[in-house]
Amino acid sequence: MLSSLKRFLIGRPLKSAELGEQKLNKTKALAILSSDALSSVAYGPEQILIVLFTVGAAAFWYSIPIAIGVLILLLALIASYRQIIFAYPHGGGAYVVSKENLGIYPGLIAGGSLLVDYILTVAVSVSAGTDAITSAFPSLHPYNVIIAIAFVLFITTLNLRGVTESASILAYPVYLFVLALFVMIGVGIYNIAAGDVSSELHTSIGTPVAGIGLFLLLKAFASGSSALTGVEAISNAIPNFKSPAPHNASKTLIAMGSLLAVLFTGIVFLAYYYGVTPKAEVTVVSQIAEQTFGRHFMYFFIQGTTALILILAANTGYSAFPLLAVNLAKDKFIPRMFTIRGDRLGYSNGIIILGLFSIILIIAFEGQTEHLIPLYAVGVFIPFTLSQSGMVVKWIREKPAGWVSKLIVNSIGAAISLIVTIMFFLTKFVQIWSIIVFLPLIIYLFYRIRKHYESVGDQLRLSTCEPAIPIEGNVIIVPVAGITHVVENSLNYAKSLQAHQVIAVYVPFEREDEAAFEEKWKNWQPDVRLVTLHSPYRSIIQPLSKFIDTVQRKAGESNYQVTVIIPQFIPKKGWHNILHNQSSLLLRTHLLYRKNVIVTTVPYHLKK
Amino acid sequence: MLSSLKRFLIGRPLKSAELGEQKLNKTKALAILSSDALSSVAYGPEQILIVLFTVGAAAFWYSIPIAIGVLILLLALIASYRQIIFAYPHGGGAYVVSKENLGIYPGLIAGGSLLVDYILTVAVSVSAGTDAITSAFPSLHPYNVIIAIAFVLFITTLNLRGVTESASILAYPVYLFVLALFVMIGVGIYNIAAGDVSSELHTSIGTPVAGIGLFLLLKAFASGSSALTGVEAISNAIPNFKSPAPHNASKTLIAMGSLLAVLFTGIVFLAYYYGVTPKAEVTVVSQIAEQTFGRHFMYFFIQGTTALILILAANTGYSAFPLLAVNLAKDKFIPRMFTIRGDRLGYSNGIIILGLFSIILIIAFEGQTEHLIPLYAVGVFIPFTLSQSGMVVKWIREKPAGWVSKLIVNSIGAAISLIVTIMFFLTKFVQIWSIIVFLPLIIYLFYRIRKHYESVGDQLRLSTCEPAIPIEGNVIIVPVAGITHVVENSLNYAKSLQAHQVIAVYVPFEREDEAAFEEKWKNWQPDVRLVTLHSPYRSIIQPLSKFIDTVQRKAGESNYQVTVIIPQFIPKKGWHNILHNQSSLLLRTHLLYRKNVIVTTVPYHLKK
Repeated sequence: MLSSLKRFLIGRPLKSAELGEQKLNKTKALAILSSDALSSVAYGPEQILIVLFTVGAAAFWYSIPIAIGVLILLLALIASYRQIIFAYPHGGGAYVVSKENLGIYPGLIAGGSLLVDYILTVAVSVSAGTDAITSAFPSLHPYNVIIAIAFVLFITTLNLRGVTESASILAYPVYLFVLALFVMIGVGIYNIAAGDVSSELHTSIGTPVAGIGLFLLLKAFASGSSALTGVEAISNAIPNFKSPAPHNASKTLIAMGSLLAVLFTGIVFLAYYYGVTPKAEVTVVSQIAEQTFGRHFMYFFIQGTTALILILAANTGYSAFPLLAVNLAKDKFIPRMFTIRGDRLGYSNGIIILGLFSIILIIAFEGQTEHLIPLYAVGVFIPFTLSQSGMVVKWIREKPAGWVSKLIVNSIGAAISLIVTIMFFLTKFVQIWSIIVFLPLIIYLFYRIRKHYESVGDQLRLSTCEPAIPIEGNVIIVPVAGITHVVENSLNYAKSLQAHQVIAVYVPFEREDEAAFEEKWKNWQPDVRLVTLHSPYRSIIQPLSKFIDTVQRKAGESNYQVTVIIPQFIPKKGWHNILHNQSSLLLRTHLLYRKNVIVTTVPYHLKK
Repeated sequence: MLSSLKRFLIGRPLKSAELGEQKLNKTKALAILSSDALSSVAYGPEQILIVLFTVGAAAFWYSIPIAIGVLILLLALIASYRQIIFAYPHGGGAYVVSKENLGIYPGLIAGGSLLVDYILTVAVSVSAGTDAITSAFPSLHPYNVIIAIAFVLFITTLNLRGVTESASILAYPVYLFVLALFVMIGVGIYNIAAGDVSSELHTSIGTPVAGIGLFLLLKAFASGSSALTGVEAISNAIPNFKSPAPHNASKTLIAMGSLLAVLFTGIVFLAYYYGVTPKAEVTVVSQIAEQTFGRHFMYFFIQGTTALILILAANTGYSAFPLLAVNLAKDKFIPRMFTIRGDRLGYSNGIIILGLFSIILIIAFEGQTEHLIPLYAVGVFIPFTLSQSGMVVKWIREKPAGWVSKLIVNSIGAAISLIVTIMFFLTKFVQIWSIIVFLPLIIYLFYRIRKHYESVGDQLRLSTCEPAIPIEGNVIIVPVAGITHVVENSLNYAKSLQAHQVIAVYVPFEREDEAAFEEKWKNWQPDVRLVTLHSPYRSIIQPLSKFIDTVQRKAGESNYQVTVIIPQFIPKKGWHNILHNQSSLLLRTHLLYRKNVIVTTVPYHLKK
């Protein structure tokens, strides 16, 4: 039943041979790879206003110079990533670039933050998408968390099915979103130019504001730079482009940067001009759209496409996380199960873990985006810094043609990313301190897992180890619970193995039982030796375990191997199992994990 | 770690020989066996008022005639149970009495309702005890459910330890409770007699009340009879009495009945005279105590002993449920695991299941006693009716000396219990309809379980079955995952068994892998035949399973037995297991349950 539910949700299993990769042209790539970056404009500008609002609405004009700062940062990042694209045509994720150029630990820091960050991508994007919906339909606001979780479950299922086939469909919402925002910004500016918007709504630029200081401005800038999360996506995915891949990827990157710049600037400007105040229940974009169009078709269209693109942005987490996990698992830093392709050829374990953790985050933070965003942004800027620094080291080390200008570009990228990261720690420590705790923990875990895998490999490899002890003969122990067909079956099998000795063991709970059973046994199996063990604590495992030890000690002296044959009857239906004490299961587990003994199970299948 | 937590909570395991039964004298027995019945006065009178309050406070005087009705019912029950005590000196639980005299199905109805009812005893008593506490400390009221769950966990742990040793301690709270209520009733009546209580607080008896009708009065009567839950406890526990057991038990029963009558009447009377109105957050007893003493020492003493006795009443559920479960399990109506004594000689499975289900009930009903009580009461009166009817049949069948008067007593008991049961169904159907659904379901389950056990027994018994097929030789299949010590170990073992044939099976995921592995194998184990299987769906189990089928078909022709030897390495530490794909575990489970093949696991224990 479970299995048919699974079939219904994710579809029939696919053959390995069906794994084919579809190369992306620029238009499609732009749509698919930039949903994360472009969707950030739905919450980035709002973050600036939230910080400025702590001083008062009069401070809102500062959002304009701050936005200019963010645009410069964007320019630097795009330039740096353009270089990574050409230097790593097979995909320059922060983990790979940092590991190759800076060494294993910086690589793990980048990998660890990204792993956490993709979870945050999902949680933040889905929560923000839900906000867009509940801004339009305020009566849904109390159900934010439930709606967000439903979206995560939906995306998880979609990814378990494998989404490549529907990739074309994913492109439309992105272009619709861009179109919608362009129309909104255009109409907004037209209205302003036509004088339809009162200029009283905002304080003019340059108005002195009491209580504003450098710290606050830095904080607002750091908050605003959360709009840049996602710009690294294209550089990770170069192999998916049609050739010449680096060339196409670079063009797509620049197109994405330009779109991002226009949308971000437009939203910040309109928010400023309209004097929009951040509210807990209505997003800034929703307020702008409402002021521009009223609650009519275009308003709902903007909210709808915003929600859609945010949910697509979550989807990028689903493509990035499992791939990073595969890389880490191949390097033995996380469990091997992340390298296994599921029924539909996706890395299902990564997908499921990602979905699970983002749901936990959404519940823990009650779906409130603003508390997750700082953590999300810092988790992005740490790998930004590391990969740019990695590129700096690479240029210095390799010195290719024109390396000096390349060095300068990446140095600027690294420096700015580092500065933003430091700003985050200085201005938002309360919200991001946890990363200082978790990152070292994660890296320590990576290290321990790697050490374990290496140690297992060493122990299993044939070349390094002591020779196996020869087996001169076999001693077989058969625990018996009564005189039944199950036991008969097991004894027949034991005899067929031509072992040196077969011993049946009986553990009576009541003393009176003992003699009677021995008598019956003698009549039934006179040629099999029966040992009865007393069990003062009503446990079968304990006395049996002791007995096996004794036999093993004796057998070991003549290089005899001890095998325990467990008779087990298998009921016809699964639910019947709860009606029977699972003593054979417990016994088997105990013997395998606690004792060094070979365990054979002889099943006796019931017919009804 | 888990195991040492268990040791800490429930203590060291006890030997079977340490099982000793302590006989109870009358004073102790009265305390231990009547906590359930006596504690019912903490909620019984309140139930009457809740029903009457639906008409208005003016109707409260009807509680007096209703109480008289309840007293008559009590008298009838005590007289009937006195006869059961003498007729079943080894314990006359409703299950036993009904099964013996009325047949198996009435027995199962009684057993099923009691099983559910003991769960309700725990849920109701603990919730009511929590109410007593939160009535005294209203700020705790929002935490009702959590407090109740904590109590259930506490009592469960105590019972897993085994409570017989602390039984003497359990006697004090009961006597303190009786004492406290006697003082309260005494002081209350004294105050009334002294004229300190205004007689304006209540309407006088006989005042006509609009809207009152027979239906409502019956409903109030049925509600009030919930105060009689627990009177059967003594008749179940006769073997625990000092001899002459039936004689002592009968005296104890009468003492309990008298105490119950006095307390019940006293509380109903005071509630009426004080004009107490039932409230959601303060119990009726708490209101009476407050009016009588003010919020001083005696008030808190009464609330404290009430809470204590209610929690002790829950404890009676813990002695009764596992014993009934043992009886049902011995008759094969419920899973055999209920007959097993745990480390501390208690029937731990019954105790744990009881605790679990009562917690579920408390959560489902949000700890609100009044919604559980009707279900609880009807679950008591069904077995009351059945066991009294059983006695009637017994007297008619056996006709001992003086059987006619005995017959009359039990007939009255049966008739009154039946009437009360019917009243419950007529007047409180909304709250108790679920028993009509669950009881048949439970009985059907009992029946199915019994049938399954009988069928298993038939199939295992040697006398009835076809002779075992002789084993002429063995074919061994070893699934191998690589060239390692683990595999070497298993192959050595396979060779030592002198089987007819040993086949190693390799399932490569990638086609390229195949040839290389076969080459390496030829060099390493030239004398073991290697079969490589293609796995289009990346599953090991599927192709292997198919292969085993083929081998089994061929082997079967010459009566050869197929054994699958699974090489498995066992990591040194438990947590390491999550780092390794549990393919051997999955494979073993699949082969044992889905195929008729013998499965041997050769463990290879890692040393670090």
